[in-house]
Amino acid sequence: MTRLAKIGVLGASGYTGSECVRLLLRHPQVEIALLTADRKAGQEMRDVFAQFSPYKLPKLVTLDGLDWPALGLDLVFCALPHATTQKVIKELLAHAPRMKVVDLSADFRLADTAAYARWYGDAHHAPELQGEAAYGLVEIHREKIRNSRLVANPGCYTTCAILPLVPLIKAKAIDPDEIVVDAKSGMTGAGRAARENMLFSEVSEGFHAYGVGHHRHMAELDQEFSAAAGREVTVTFTPHLVPMNRGILSTIYVRGLAGRSPQDLHAILTKTYAGEPFVHVLPFGEMPQTRHVRGSNMTFIGVAADRIKPRAIIGAALDNLVKGAAGQAVQNMNLMLGFPETMGLEQVALFP
Amino acid sequence: MTRLAKIGVLGASGYTGSECVRLLLRHPQVEIALLTADRKAGQEMRDVFAQFSPYKLPKLVTLDGLDWPALGLDLVFCALPHATTQKVIKELLAHAPRMKVVDLSADFRLADTAAYARWYGDAHHAPELQGEAAYGLVEIHREKIRNSRLVANPGCYTTCAILPLVPLIKAKAIDPDEIVVDAKSGMTGAGRAARENMLFSEVSEGFHAYGVGHHRHMAELDQEFSAAAGREVTVTFTPHLVPMNRGILSTIYVRGLAGRSPQDLHAILTKTYAGEPFVHVLPFGEMPQTRHVRGSNMTFIGVAADRIKPRAIIGAALDNLVKGAAGQAVQNMNLMLGFPETMGLEQVALFP
Amino acid sequence: MTRLAKIGVLGASGYTGSECVRLLLRHPQVEIALLTADRKAGQEMRDVFAQFSPYKLPKLVTLDGLDWPALGLDLVFCALPHATTQKVIKELLAHAPRMKVVDLSADFRLADTAAYARWYGDAHHAPELQGEAAYGLVEIHREKIRNSRLVANPGCYTTCAILPLVPLIKAKAIDPDEIVVDAKSGMTGAGRAARENMLFSEVSEGFHAYGVGHHRHMAELDQEFSAAAGREVTVTFTPHLVPMNRGILSTIYVRGLAGRSPQDLHAILTKTYAGEPFVHVLPFGEMPQTRHVRGSNMTFIGVAADRIKPRAIIGAALDNLVKGAAGQAVQNMNLMLGFPETMGLEQVALFP
Amino acid sequence: MTRLAKIGVLGASGYTGSECVRLLLRHPQVEIALLTADRKAGQEMRDVFAQFSPYKLPKLVTLDGLDWPALGLDLVFCALPHATTQKVIKELLAHAPRMKVVDLSADFRLADTAAYARWYGDAHHAPELQGEAAYGLVEIHREKIRNSRLVANPGCYTTCAILPLVPLIKAKAIDPDEIVVDAKSGMTGAGRAARENMLFSEVSEGFHAYGVGHHRHMAELDQEFSAAAGREVTVTFTPHLVPMNRGILSTIYVRGLAGRSPQDLHAILTKTYAGEPFVHVLPFGEMPQTRHVRGSNMTFIGVAADRIKPRAIIGAALDNLVKGAAGQAVQNMNLMLGFPETMGLEQVALFP
Repeated sequence: MTRLAKIGVLGASGYTGSECVRLLLRHPQVEIALLTADRKAGQEMRDVFAQFSPYKLPKLVTLDGLDWPALGLDLVFCALPHATTQKVIKELLAHAPRMKVVDLSADFRLADTAAYARWYGDAHHAPELQGEAAYGLVEIHREKIRNSRLVANPGCYTTCAILPLVPLIKAKAIDPDEIVVDAKSGMTGAGRAARENMLFSEVSEGFHAYGVGHHRHMAELDQEFSAAAGREVTVTFTPHLVPMNRGILSTIYVRGLAGRSPQDLHAILTKTYAGEPFVHVLPFGEMPQTRHVRGSNMTFIGVAADRIKPRAIIGAALDNLVKGAAGQAVQNMNLMLGFPETMGLEQVALFP
Repeated sequence: MTRLAKIGVLGASGYTGSECVRLLLRHPQVEIALLTADRKAGQEMRDVFAQFSPYKLPKLVTLDGLDWPALGLDLVFCALPHATTQKVIKELLAHAPRMKVVDLSADFRLADTAAYARWYGDAHHAPELQGEAAYGLVEIHREKIRNSRLVANPGCYTTCAILPLVPLIKAKAIDPDEIVVDAKSGMTGAGRAARENMLFSEVSEGFHAYGVGHHRHMAELDQEFSAAAGREVTVTFTPHLVPMNRGILSTIYVRGLAGRSPQDLHAILTKTYAGEPFVHVLPFGEMPQTRHVRGSNMTFIGVAADRIKPRAIIGAALDNLVKGAAGQAVQNMNLMLGFPETMGLEQVALFP
Repeated sequence: MTRLAKIGVLGASGYTGSECVRLLLRHPQVEIALLTADRKAGQEMRDVFAQFSPYKLPKLVTLDGLDWPALGLDLVFCALPHATTQKVIKELLAHAPRMKVVDLSADFRLADTAAYARWYGDAHHAPELQGEAAYGLVEIHREKIRNSRLVANPGCYTTCAILPLVPLIKAKAIDPDEIVVDAKSGMTGAGRAARENMLFSEVSEGFHAYGVGHHRHMAELDQEFSAAAGREVTVTFTPHLVPMNRGILSTIYVRGLAGRSPQDLHAILTKTYAGEPFVHVLPFGEMPQTRHVRGSNMTFIGVAADRIKPRAIIGAALDNLVKGAAGQAVQNMNLMLGFPETMGLEQVALFP
Repeated sequence: MTRLAKIGVLGASGYTGSECVRLLLRHPQVEIALLTADRKAGQEMRDVFAQFSPYKLPKLVTLDGLDWPALGLDLVFCALPHATTQKVIKELLAHAPRMKVVDLSADFRLADTAAYARWYGDAHHAPELQGEAAYGLVEIHREKIRNSRLVANPGCYTTCAILPLVPLIKAKAIDPDEIVVDAKSGMTGAGRAARENMLFSEVSEGFHAYGVGHHRHMAELDQEFSAAAGREVTVTFTPHLVPMNRGILSTIYVRGLAGRSPQDLHAILTKTYAGEPFVHVLPFGEMPQTRHVRGSNMTFIGVAADRIKPRAIIGAALDNLVKGAAGQAVQNMNLMLGFPETMGLEQVALFP
């Protein structure tokens, strides 16, 4: 493509939307041509995110009544709330069937529409599109993504568990029935909705678990782990909130199968990700820290031995807004539009 | 006792020492008669902790050459670094055998001096005293503490795992071989030593595990859990650091035995702690948050069902400097000196 | 009073209301007899502030239709939003004229009802009560408060500027036309309303000024400084938000008059506050830190010389929820009900 | 230059050094050829800053005995502690006189070596080099920097006061004798030395001023403001520490001269910086926030009217490690080596 690709961001006033804008602004092959934000329509992007004040960006508009064919977009990032997205994308693709879509919501992540209905409490509104949707975790589904029109960007917690675990489950190196994922997320994972329990004064200087026993990201874990195992797999998963903005850390408890030691698990992950630009396996025994991937598209993975054999403890860290959302989305876009996979995603982590 | 008890705090320039001072300053039955801090000797307490500026307190002195009998102390809190403490207390009790000691270090926590040597890498320097030391977790060992001259205050992580688990292990309600304790602590747990990895800029906006597979608090867990089970028990335990000052949260994964449901586990804990002033079991399904116990001597415990039966997820939260250190120590003192157990410990948590 | 005083807290679901509850729960002469919270009516206090879970407290009720005479309260703390309070207190005192009121809102702080209308954009709804209201800064207006039925608790920013400045203005030691107050507050000062710009992710890791040139606390500063000077005084005041929960620090730039040196200013403040239990003047040249008063009713004041003579830089620090709100309110209550002024307010600051 | 420029970073184990590495790693025209860190010599960069783990970088070496001519460096960033730097650079330029140097310490910032001796308490060790050193604030001294071999990168506080004030002083639009700069910095400004008062637990949840009346950055302010005014100018300056990692906010109190209104001051700044890529003047009345420049090389400036005429309140925000240190240094390098000024510095701020 010699001209710049024309890109839209639907839902630009939320954190994942603004993070897409941050990355796209410096991507050499794209032009930001459309920004929507229903409640903030009519405002400039700088009014809702002052960091964009120095840059020229389209004014925020409402989704209603957009003339999709006339807009001539190559791809849209859809960063709308869960549940409204299926209808929006259905309509959008009806009007502009050659446009490509990376959806950052959960609406197209579950291949099984019955599972969607069960976990999200509502019937799927675009089951005919679900069939063509790729699950957009590049390191696992690269080829399918490359050829898809509609890609469902994975959940942030999910990515931080799938990347370390799927290669081990596929290799039958760990017992899939004995996995415990204790996950910790920064607050941006909860989005920008004004809720009392997300206020600074409620969150600062404290730590807690939530959604214990019934968090929706479980559905994605079930799907991807079961696919990797070739049979139904269910894991224990507990999310927690950390008083920080960005980052997810998964501490994962597993048991080696058939004599696989923690070192063996480490070797499998090291080999699997040797050529991947955005997954970095630390030396055996080193554990990742979220601060070392902040602002970057990296996932760091570490493996250590538990004192109880043959258990291992696996750590994975990523920035929930980058590899866990917008960075992953741009990585998907790069594949879908034929750009180099790392283009616009090469920022080094911001620490301290 | 009609006169005020005379109390000393050894190591008053660290966080556990200063927290003892905070609590003792408002305890109606005691007088702070001695404060030591070797490197800060000669300074006023306000010079090392400015919050004490309005209060009259003894000047900091060095331990060397103190005339223990002349001081006439009733009890000392020993908040010195691990490993130096055994020698200090040995000498102190040699000179003032009727003085009582609450030791906040790890030096007298392990009844098995061989285990001490194994975990701490050095021979025990006061094995003859170890025999009389009580493990100072009041809710578990109240009667022994009441009659002890030397009480070893438990570790903060340890307290936050023993309180929720020992009643369940004793009741044979959970499988002691299938316990995973994923623990998260605020930074004051790491003390006041000036170390690069404890700087604000290194800690803020990040999260990580440490000591994976080999943290010293495991030794205490082994001791107390094995005692409760009547056989050797080893658990998986991973500590993490949270960018906050105070608080420990344990997320504990257990499996019910003999058909015990998560609700059954909750019922056991509720009954066990019904009369305890400092352990509060939340309604079934509610999980504790560290912020709700900050600055108080409370432990909050919650139990929820995992989606995989018969697993349960247990949460426990306490303030590592209060119930996890100085508050526990004052609770021990109250027992040892015959004061009401809650005296000086009734502060309501400071939230937000 | 030999029986316990019966106390109500109106607006118990906000931060100043809950902080009143925290302090009152441990006050030996009072009983919490009424808690209101309109939107949370019907819930237990533990449902809105989980730290109160272990304590027995009245259920939250709505203000509507309360039978004030039957309740027989001795005093209510009114922690309702600005602007609704005048009507509420007017009605309340009409039904129970012997009840006493400490109002934590801004509604009765300005003696000049025209100034109220100008700053708050609405006519005063209870001008007849305004006449009897005392401005509840104990160190400045102790005697009037002692004999008042209605006390207007001062603003948090205001307290942190009035305490250091009024003695200097009264002594004509500084030029009242050349005062700059650069104030910084923790987030709890903004209350518990769910607003986007108060979310953790918006506040953490950042710092900014707000209300530049037109913050409402200026009206209180004008009133108290003008009274102290005996003529109209207007100061420059800029508030900022700090990513922390509690604390206000004022950095104040002043010029000595008539040859008064910074040391002279320090001497005046030291002498003024020598007998005050809740105002502590640091040694000359030491500046206060908010962390050293956290959770306590203390104000710390420091004075240093600027390098430009005869300018001085004055620092003042307090906990906005304690001396800046609920602690001050309890101090007022103690005076109004004849209790010792420090009763229930003797907690030592919680640091770290 | 068609080959990549060979760059060294002296002192790569501190925060300004590592920030140089972060930026240089993605600069398309340079190659990182040398990293020194005396105490960490022999280690990999990933051992001292794990975020660099995925990247290939030279091993850390000690400064001693480096063969400067053989290294063939085009430019070094010198991020060594104050006071040692003059000797290091003197020796380095003696051996490799055509190498260029950007010094991030304070050692060459003061043109007046007597002022250096007075503020830093030691005689200047390279007065002959001081004469050729340019003060490296590009927006003020662009042409001199372009032609210099040795550039002294300005202090972070200084930059955040000079950028908003120098144009106004030059224009004689404000009274230079009536300037108050109340500055607030994140903790990375204090560096990476392990000091008790920089520990997370000492810094978190608190705020304070320091260096009141006598901070060394005053010397730079005096120099640049006096140069702008054409006569000696001294300002009041108070630094504070904010519990955040990155960012400086200056709140500056000024008085318009000769009828200049706050709007006039705003117009002067807007015009001055219209073409500058890294200084952004906000619309009149909007004040900057540090979070909106985090990780970027931007400075945001705002101007508002005080309620007391003709005073204005000016805010300026920058990232102390980028525009306040490493970003400014790379901007200097770009000028000195003939690269486009914005090369490698175009990252959009990371918010939230």
